[in-house]
Amino acid sequence: MKLIRFGEAGKEQPGIQSASGKYLDCSGFEEDWNEDFFTNNGLARLQEWLEANEENLNEIPADSRLGPPIARPSKIICIGLNYRKHAIESGMAVPEVPIIFMKATSSLCGPFDPILIPKNSVKTDWEVELAVVIGKRAKYVSKENAMEYVAGYCVHNDVSERDFQLHHGGQWVKGKSADNFAPLGPVLVTKTEIRDPHNLRLWLKLNGKMLQDSNTSDLVFDIPELIEHLSQYMTLLPGDVISTGTPAGVGLGLTPPTYLKAGDVVELGIEGLGEAKQVAMNDPEA
Amino acid sequence: MKLIRFGEAGKEQPGIQSASGKYLDCSGFEEDWNEDFFTNNGLARLQEWLEANEENLNEIPADSRLGPPIARPSKIICIGLNYRKHAIESGMAVPEVPIIFMKATSSLCGPFDPILIPKNSVKTDWEVELAVVIGKRAKYVSKENAMEYVAGYCVHNDVSERDFQLHHGGQWVKGKSADNFAPLGPVLVTKTEIRDPHNLRLWLKLNGKMLQDSNTSDLVFDIPELIEHLSQYMTLLPGDVISTGTPAGVGLGLTPPTYLKAGDVVELGIEGLGEAKQVAMNDPEA
Repeated sequence: MKLIRFGEAGKEQPGIQSASGKYLDCSGFEEDWNEDFFTNNGLARLQEWLEANEENLNEIPADSRLGPPIARPSKIICIGLNYRKHAIESGMAVPEVPIIFMKATSSLCGPFDPILIPKNSVKTDWEVELAVVIGKRAKYVSKENAMEYVAGYCVHNDVSERDFQLHHGGQWVKGKSADNFAPLGPVLVTKTEIRDPHNLRLWLKLNGKMLQDSNTSDLVFDIPELIEHLSQYMTLLPGDVISTGTPAGVGLGLTPPTYLKAGDVVELGIEGLGEAKQVAMNDPEA
Repeated sequence: MKLIRFGEAGKEQPGIQSASGKYLDCSGFEEDWNEDFFTNNGLARLQEWLEANEENLNEIPADSRLGPPIARPSKIICIGLNYRKHAIESGMAVPEVPIIFMKATSSLCGPFDPILIPKNSVKTDWEVELAVVIGKRAKYVSKENAMEYVAGYCVHNDVSERDFQLHHGGQWVKGKSADNFAPLGPVLVTKTEIRDPHNLRLWLKLNGKMLQDSNTSDLVFDIPELIEHLSQYMTLLPGDVISTGTPAGVGLGLTPPTYLKAGDVVELGIEGLGEAKQVAMNDPEA
């Protein structure tokens, strides 16, 4: 299945993308794609419900905004420097254990929402990433059975303000958490639809120019290793997001370094998970 | 007002502590003390409701567990090294700007719940802290009007695993996020009940011995400065928690360093905000 959410920000309705590519309204299922849904075996119940109801579902209105394909999770955990070449372009060592940091969940937004350049930002940067959505509570999990805890996958742009992240004192969360810094989607693709999550092309273009173009086969730590590692330190809840890291080609690594300005167009995608597009604009609240 | 929540973990009911100290059941108000409650002017509505109903409220059952006084927030943001002597005992510089890091919200628990020593932990440590609960959405706030965004205050034990935090690669969140690493409460005391949050004694005892004993007047960055700083980097949502940092006297700073073992009793309190007590035990899921 491919899950979507659509409608006004904060009031999204649930839906799916059908096998033929249509966006269908699942508000009749009367649940959001949130922690409770995943906890209570929602994916299996939804599948059953779709078998009985899919042919009668309405297409969503043609002008609908897509929201993030899951409701705001309890946490968005990001993995730093998890592609070798990106660690090198960042001037940092390839890590021996996963580097983890958090992104405020208030940064979550839809896949076609604008990237908001925050007040006082001079280095807003892009990062295409494979995001993994957790399907059931995971604590002290070993990598051998870690994939049981995965609900599915999404495209994520781990938008990052490099000055805030690296030069404003302290921990990376400062540069990762502004509003609209976590465009997610367009879809959550359930685990069984992806034959091998460790062999997916992922790419990102800025103003039509390909800048990131890699494959999840280059991950330093793969998904089972990440789930094993993370779940030793904290309990992963259903609906939580693990963003697995970005490959080389971010603005920080270009010569000269290049950052987003209002009007810039970011397009990104992952094989089998769809494509997203975000236009940068100055935060109107700034 | 002093807000509480009581009952089984994950199924807490709302309540208050009355002026005479009784714990009263507010389940008839039919709201949890959560993001929606604070967003929708809940504190003022609750006050009005109590004027009409308080004398008819039942005391909570005598054997009730107290939960955290607020529902799981969107984020728990902690401030590092925000008391001068604690920075020194940690072997780190007194910061020039607030050091911020996140704590997974899944670590939230009640004020008398056990501290769970996580699997593979050898350095589980304590940190009494003044926690500030946000009352309304705060973005790009200046310190001059920052206090308008405060709902109230709680006692927080920012339980920390020093090896996980400092020696397992990467960011501090790794040592801050295990289950039951965020005992909060007993009560949320609303802002108007505390004359000066920057002049409150806070203390922590281990097995009856006073180890932390300081005053919030020693904060390096005060509450308005923290709200101004944080709200430049991320939007604070109603119900979010800012834990303002711990004074000297943590286990890491003792000679020799001392960490929690099963059976250790931690008692802590803040003037006007009540007292909490947690017994350390090995995590039964480990």
